[in-house]
Amino acid sequence: MKKPLKLIVIGGVAAGTKSASKARRDDPDMEITIVTEEPYISYAGCGLAYYIGNVVDKREKLFARSPEAFKTKQNITVLTRHFADRINTYDRTVQVTDLSKGSKLTLHYDRVLIATGAKAIIPPIGGINLEGVFPLHTVTDADNIKSYLSGHTVRKACIIGGGYIGIEMAENFKALGIHATVFEKAGTIMPLLFDPDISTVCSDHIREKGVELLTGVTVENIVGDPDGKVRAVSAGGKEYDCELVIIAAGVKPNVKLARDARITIGPTGAIKVDKRMETSVRGIFAAGDCVEMTHLVSGKPCWFPLGSTANKQGRVAGANIAGGNKNYPGVLGTSIVKVFDLAVSRTGLNEREAKDNGYNTLSVTVKTPTRAGYYPGGKEVTLKLTADKGSKKLLGAQVVGTDTVDKIIDTVAAALMGNLSITDLTNIDISYSPPYSTAMGTIIVAAGVLEEKLT
Amino acid sequence: MKKPLKLIVIGGVAAGTKSASKARRDDPDMEITIVTEEPYISYAGCGLAYYIGNVVDKREKLFARSPEAFKTKQNITVLTRHFADRINTYDRTVQVTDLSKGSKLTLHYDRVLIATGAKAIIPPIGGINLEGVFPLHTVTDADNIKSYLSGHTVRKACIIGGGYIGIEMAENFKALGIHATVFEKAGTIMPLLFDPDISTVCSDHIREKGVELLTGVTVENIVGDPDGKVRAVSAGGKEYDCELVIIAAGVKPNVKLARDARITIGPTGAIKVDKRMETSVRGIFAAGDCVEMTHLVSGKPCWFPLGSTANKQGRVAGANIAGGNKNYPGVLGTSIVKVFDLAVSRTGLNEREAKDNGYNTLSVTVKTPTRAGYYPGGKEVTLKLTADKGSKKLLGAQVVGTDTVDKIIDTVAAALMGNLSITDLTNIDISYSPPYSTAMGTIIVAAGVLEEKLT
Repeated sequence: MKKPLKLIVIGGVAAGTKSASKARRDDPDMEITIVTEEPYISYAGCGLAYYIGNVVDKREKLFARSPEAFKTKQNITVLTRHFADRINTYDRTVQVTDLSKGSKLTLHYDRVLIATGAKAIIPPIGGINLEGVFPLHTVTDADNIKSYLSGHTVRKACIIGGGYIGIEMAENFKALGIHATVFEKAGTIMPLLFDPDISTVCSDHIREKGVELLTGVTVENIVGDPDGKVRAVSAGGKEYDCELVIIAAGVKPNVKLARDARITIGPTGAIKVDKRMETSVRGIFAAGDCVEMTHLVSGKPCWFPLGSTANKQGRVAGANIAGGNKNYPGVLGTSIVKVFDLAVSRTGLNEREAKDNGYNTLSVTVKTPTRAGYYPGGKEVTLKLTADKGSKKLLGAQVVGTDTVDKIIDTVAAALMGNLSITDLTNIDISYSPPYSTAMGTIIVAAGVLEEKLT
Repeated sequence: MKKPLKLIVIGGVAAGTKSASKARRDDPDMEITIVTEEPYISYAGCGLAYYIGNVVDKREKLFARSPEAFKTKQNITVLTRHFADRINTYDRTVQVTDLSKGSKLTLHYDRVLIATGAKAIIPPIGGINLEGVFPLHTVTDADNIKSYLSGHTVRKACIIGGGYIGIEMAENFKALGIHATVFEKAGTIMPLLFDPDISTVCSDHIREKGVELLTGVTVENIVGDPDGKVRAVSAGGKEYDCELVIIAAGVKPNVKLARDARITIGPTGAIKVDKRMETSVRGIFAAGDCVEMTHLVSGKPCWFPLGSTANKQGRVAGANIAGGNKNYPGVLGTSIVKVFDLAVSRTGLNEREAKDNGYNTLSVTVKTPTRAGYYPGGKEVTLKLTADKGSKKLLGAQVVGTDTVDKIIDTVAAALMGNLSITDLTNIDISYSPPYSTAMGTIIVAAGVLEEKLT
């Protein structure tokens, strides 16, 4: 009988648990251990802002599965509060510290899955360690923020960073009756995701909702009171009073463990993997927010840390760890964010990214109803479609509106994956009935305008 | 200077008006005349059931543009209440009867666009001509029904046919407080569109809403009272009392004019056109419900009369009439119907169609939440995905639920158009954030299950 393989999974959120579960399904005999420094596992990293805003009403809803359930239902051992210090690729061991006991242990492996995720970027400004200043990346961060909110009177909160976590937090603070001020150093919010014309629609909406939104403003300092509690944020030469600060200045891949093991790091700063999700060291796989991926439009390495991607990569990695041969092709940079009553979403390359990639772009923006004009309840949705002038290749889409945003983006995402042309899009057979769409549909209208301009 | 081309468009709903407008845009000099037997033009054929149900609150909302506006804004002459009797391809004329005056006229043409649409199938049963019995295909039909409803006490209505018009009418009668009985001779409703397992979800829902739904039952006769008014429908040996009957037994392509002009009719009974929407007679184009199309999955001729398709074909035909060179590739058989609180939709081949086309099918059906489990407001949606066992080719999808149905179908439609494989679908980068989807998304979950079963 073959000796069962030993798999060590390092990281217990999306990619880690998904790959462990998939490896178990495909190889019932494998000895699987998940190591995580956190006290819990398998949690919804994308739901934390909504948990703070009480939209998610119960903390336990954030957890898909307990460590005990992994053991009893899937025979997967979970070591919580265990930190993986080092992967020794010579003798195929992982050095682990038991954070509860302070003791060390050595785990032998045949396969490793690195799912160390990303970590919050803490900007190099004063006052970061004041009481009332929090990053928001883990359940522990969210717990700390909720506990602070219940123990202190917080009337005003400052949010450093106008990316999607910052914007989600602004909405959730408003839901709690807390005045929110958002500081974004770029000229527009979510500058890495959306072109200025699209993100401006969101900024206007956020301001209408009563959020103080400051763009093109750099935070200089967080100001404390004599007790060491946050009192204000100093930015652009002014002080903004607040009782709480959220650091939402972005995330970066957590690759120290991989780098120390001499695993190749890609140009994006995340772990380089092949299509099978294997790193440069045979037998060591990586998945989730710590790996870089191929952009399916540009063909270049990119980094989009998202729970959806982590799950898909985890499935591929888990299958391959169990002896399978699955490929993960890459991403389209698809994202969606709720911005109060709006959804804003993108797929493919936005105009700036397309230009950075050397394309000679042509974009059109159309605003259409989401239902037949005569059918009640229709909203308006704005779609910006970007193509390459020379090849007429579809490059990407950005959508903002109150309805059908995700539908439009998912459809364009599938079109990008299938290399559909703009002309193909003008004739695509999507669903139509008055309660769901106009007769042509937003995508076809935009593609038609773009096609005319390209010819 | 070149002599301007003369275009005669026969039919004034979706394909006719769209192609006239497109031809005008691409050729400002063309002399364009639209001939229609109806008293109006450019109306929303897909909104008629909702107009009867008062969901569409004003009759004028059904009309996109008046004959006068076509003249003043686009210099397109519209001859309403004019019936095109004959196309004479020898001398390039169309013989027209002015239905108001009873007079004849002869119009010369360089190009013709046949957009004669479809017509209601009237089943060969007794009582069809009784007062209170109506087809529902044109605005005139809808006007007649509304006028009858306001002039008579209608407590019970019978609907002959459980296709999508029949189902939409059942919902709209309920909205008006009228008891509805639907008779469908097949074993399930919408039998041409959906597999029994999917349509049964709809039947159950319709019955829960209080509609009397009889499947596998053939209507024998419509029964009148001594005054010649409808009194009941006789079906399966029983009589069902009613004061109004809707004939919703389907439609067929209206091709008499084309057939008489020796234009080739395809195997589906609709007009055969090439990719440019030109018929077998040079200079005569056709578009909309009167033409047959290519199914992009099976590659075979098919006939799906829909307003969305008519608009797209009209655009292609209009461009080519004006000297362009656009292609219309075909359809995926995409449809969506509102069924009370549910939407039910399909794209590609359903299981029965796939088997009829010689595929060795494998289908999976998954039921998933439409949002992250912890985010409030999520619903459940059911997706049936069908593939070919041998080639692992994606063949089609059917979806039923209260939310995200159109999103899922449009995404699969784009995937089908791009020839994505089941494996591609398992890794598709669609939009995820807790308010809009689960981390994997319904399509990826279904594709994952299907992929496992195929390997």
